Amino acid sequence: MVETQGPLSALVLITGANRGLGLEMVKQMVETQGPLTPVSVLFACCRDPGGPRAEGLQALAKKHPDIIKIMCMDAADPKSIKQAAQQVASVVGKSGLNIIINNAAIAIRSPFFESTPEEMQNCFNINAIGPMFISLLRAAAKDSGTPGMSCRKAAVINISTIASSNGLANETYNKWRVLPYRVSKVTMNMMSVCASVELQKDEILCMMLHPGWVRTDLGGPEGELDTHESVEGMFRVMNSLTEKHCGALLNWKGETVPW
Amino acid sequence: MVETQGPLSALVLITGANRGLGLEMVKQMVETQGPLTPVSVLFACCRDPGGPRAEGLQALAKKHPDIIKIMCMDAADPKSIKQAAQQVASVVGKSGLNIIINNAAIAIRSPFFESTPEEMQNCFNINAIGPMFISLLRAAAKDSGTPGMSCRKAAVINISTIASSNGLANETYNKWRVLPYRVSKVTMNMMSVCASVELQKDEILCMMLHPGWVRTDLGGPEGELDTHESVEGMFRVMNSLTEKHCGALLNWKGETVPW
Repeated sequence: MVETQGPLSALVLITGANRGLGLEMVKQMVETQGPLTPVSVLFACCRDPGGPRAEGLQALAKKHPDIIKIMCMDAADPKSIKQAAQQVASVVGKSGLNIIINNAAIAIRSPFFESTPEEMQNCFNINAIGPMFISLLRAAAKDSGTPGMSCRKAAVINISTIASSNGLANETYNKWRVLPYRVSKVTMNMMSVCASVELQKDEILCMMLHPGWVRTDLGGPEGELDTHESVEGMFRVMNSLTEKHCGALLNWKGETVPW
Repeated sequence: MVETQGPLSALVLITGANRGLGLEMVKQMVETQGPLTPVSVLFACCRDPGGPRAEGLQALAKKHPDIIKIMCMDAADPKSIKQAAQQVASVVGKSGLNIIINNAAIAIRSPFFESTPEEMQNCFNINAIGPMFISLLRAAAKDSGTPGMSCRKAAVINISTIASSNGLANETYNKWRVLPYRVSKVTMNMMSVCASVELQKDEILCMMLHPGWVRTDLGGPEGELDTHESVEGMFRVMNSLTEKHCGALLNWKGETVPW
């Protein structure tokens, strides 16, 4: 039962919410009776909410105006993150935020010898550095009144990838010759593990999920999963998380991905 | 026997050669009858060869003027690397370079919530991005006339750290709260594994070494090893490397470090 794990309805923020996995997450959170529902407010962040690439999200928000709040945020821009944090704080007040899903990402498809410093930097800024809104998570953790850690209490979920695995890169490099993407995500992993240690004292869970190889703009048409299956799996995993999973990297089926 | 593994005397380049581990490497290569000797030319690179922090290296070079060539190179500056590559090429000609040891590094001691984007960037530029001089390594690999891979044929050895391990970060983060350093080195690992795949077809070995926690400026006075012991160990490991070690991360004793 959801009721035993924290607040009755969750306050959630998702980055890169206008397409691919992000859009499907928004959809399942508001339209499905899933393990992470009900959601009272869902901050759906993207860089250009008024642009043609956010039309699906806008349509969804029109159907669920009380829940979905579309927010303009560039996850690579500290100023933009700060503004968004203020906006969120003004809406949620002392309840804080229960879940932040850092999903915004780009894939720069450059093999080793063709990757430029600019590509590395660009990919790093967008993929590795995500918002944390620590004070809002702390507020939610305190507000929950429950012991331990869970996604219904306070959690940062960073969407990583199996391509971030140093141990598997030897096998997978020729399949996905995407050096800047790999580097940005292995960095995200290190930052997440270190953050998970820092956040433990506040009972905020921080971990990483590999969504599978999904047929999105980023994953390409050869992906093995559709967004529905991937998100359904990730939500199931998220619902099962406890303090044991601090700093873990799991796939959409809940299996550990080697570092 | 050294003779069966490649050329009689090796052409070597070491970055960050003016102090700590780098200086000890230069010393052992020219003064010890070790597994990686004899060295015919050793390019000892540092950012400020005329400065007070390079006095030890200058003294060593005066004793061995035929072997040690001190070169000004900033490993974070592509222009500087290019200039150095031209200088090296003009000395070694078609023999190329047998070993490049990317040892230059800085440690920025910032815990998670105090690490600035500038610190991350600075640490990344110096620690993660090292010179490769691929054409010079290719020349050496061709010139060797021996099958397989080894440090006496053609190798890039990247000095990494156990603090780059995502799997151990949960345990070690509070001991070494050095986020930018960790991130730069986990990035170096990913780049090294991907490079190792690219370089295999040219029979150039690329792998990483963890030198141990050494009492240097970077490691601090609490380190568990002195530079002599660490470098002696690393050279022994380097001498034992074959194509099986492409993309590996080993410590100074030859043990695998978890990713």
